[in-house]
Amino acid sequence: MLLVLLGAFVIAAGGWAADTAPARARFVRFERGATTAYGVMEGERVRELSGDLFGVWTRTDRLHSLDTVKLLPPTQPTQVLAMAGNYRSHLNSAEIPPKFRIPQPFLKSPSCLIGHGAAVVLPKDARDVHFEGELVLVIGKTTRQASREKAAEAIFGVTCGNDVSERYWQNDEQNKDIQWWRAKGSDTFGPVGPWIVTGLDWNDLELRVRVNGEVKQQDRTSRLIHDAAAIVSMISRYVTLQPGDLIFTGTPGTTSALKPGDVVEVEIEGVGVLRNSVE
Amino acid sequence: MLLVLLGAFVIAAGGWAADTAPARARFVRFERGATTAYGVMEGERVRELSGDLFGVWTRTDRLHSLDTVKLLPPTQPTQVLAMAGNYRSHLNSAEIPPKFRIPQPFLKSPSCLIGHGAAVVLPKDARDVHFEGELVLVIGKTTRQASREKAAEAIFGVTCGNDVSERYWQNDEQNKDIQWWRAKGSDTFGPVGPWIVTGLDWNDLELRVRVNGEVKQQDRTSRLIHDAAAIVSMISRYVTLQPGDLIFTGTPGTTSALKPGDVVEVEIEGVGVLRNSVE
Repeated sequence: MLLVLLGAFVIAAGGWAADTAPARARFVRFERGATTAYGVMEGERVRELSGDLFGVWTRTDRLHSLDTVKLLPPTQPTQVLAMAGNYRSHLNSAEIPPKFRIPQPFLKSPSCLIGHGAAVVLPKDARDVHFEGELVLVIGKTTRQASREKAAEAIFGVTCGNDVSERYWQNDEQNKDIQWWRAKGSDTFGPVGPWIVTGLDWNDLELRVRVNGEVKQQDRTSRLIHDAAAIVSMISRYVTLQPGDLIFTGTPGTTSALKPGDVVEVEIEGVGVLRNSVE
Repeated sequence: MLLVLLGAFVIAAGGWAADTAPARARFVRFERGATTAYGVMEGERVRELSGDLFGVWTRTDRLHSLDTVKLLPPTQPTQVLAMAGNYRSHLNSAEIPPKFRIPQPFLKSPSCLIGHGAAVVLPKDARDVHFEGELVLVIGKTTRQASREKAAEAIFGVTCGNDVSERYWQNDEQNKDIQWWRAKGSDTFGPVGPWIVTGLDWNDLELRVRVNGEVKQQDRTSRLIHDAAAIVSMISRYVTLQPGDLIFTGTPGTTSALKPGDVVEVEIEGVGVLRNSVE
């Protein structure tokens, strides 16, 4: 309860919700016919919003049932960052290797984002494309040189993400790609959604990934090596973050290859389930 | 003359210029008071445009003298890519090393872009920040899986760029940063401008970088290992490019460290001079 109240306070203090957003809310971006808009979930229905979710917005009188809209990536970020090696369970090492004692961000192309329900398309020449279930932070305001406290305040909410990764292109020991631009940024390699949840304590949520119903990854965000506030603070020392920017916080455990026909689900406690098929 | 005509044809075929753009034109993005707009240069004056440079636009009757506007990065890209090791003179090797026989792109954060005249600010903990003068391609339309020919048609024009790079963070042999997110993407590490030039043969232009008036880099774009069309085609096989996206094509020769007070000029034949000071 305290956390919910704290969430409400942060939202009020940030000045985000011109309208009367509840402390705990689920925000979507969707397409319906010729309309693309933000919305707020009311049960299983989508209340269409008018305006900018990170600026001034109001509720409209348009209410859509969820199955009549196409969910889009919940923001249109100016940039997408993600964290490498941010769970001990993924590093597979009792000690944290020296290079992971500082947060290790990288960039994903915003072009790679897809929403809940869209398909991950394996590139023709891809050899070894893995899922990576992750908690994704949604930045709510322009953030530069932020302390831990300011960084936490800059987080508007969270969503589920799948940092799809081509391991052959990613592995520099094979002397292939110098950077991860296509290993992590190929089209459809960034499923996010289904919605942004606000007013949640993102520091201790269960994360689970299922492929075709079988649990493949399971951990808690409390076990992140660098937590949400540390990540945002670190990045903002160098790169100014903008409203709507997304930060994938890292993946736990071990991952494995996807094949056409697979269905990947990233479920985060209190957030929901992001489901994408593979083609 | 043939090339100019070809340029005009490409522009006409692309349907970019709803208004009557000349084959060879210089387009700017600028700020003046409360206005942010695109413009087209008429001599040393800026004709303000209304609309989207990559969609439908028209000339307005507002004409500003260049010294009354602040030049911004000439587009607002959804993503910025850049090429590693794309000149023999930079690789310092008679043979092209195997890994550079394919184009080697990487991502720069759009947050790092600054316009002509703005200052490159050295991060407090940076040790070794270098200039890298480059030809920058401006994408004119949504481009996916493009052949060489389609890739060339997708290039709206070119501008000058400085792919500012922190070598200590960039050098993975020092076991520091896993990816180049801050080495290449820190705020102000992406000077671009002063304008986009259309209708130019970008495949054989003299590129010169001066620091405090002294020539530090000099080469021709004809000596790129992977030329403009090859780069765009390669990237578009994996990452869908959008109108306004920028691609830095790589830097020639050797670079060196910048210090506060330095003035860096990137000059490209037929394009102009991008000038930025260092703080």
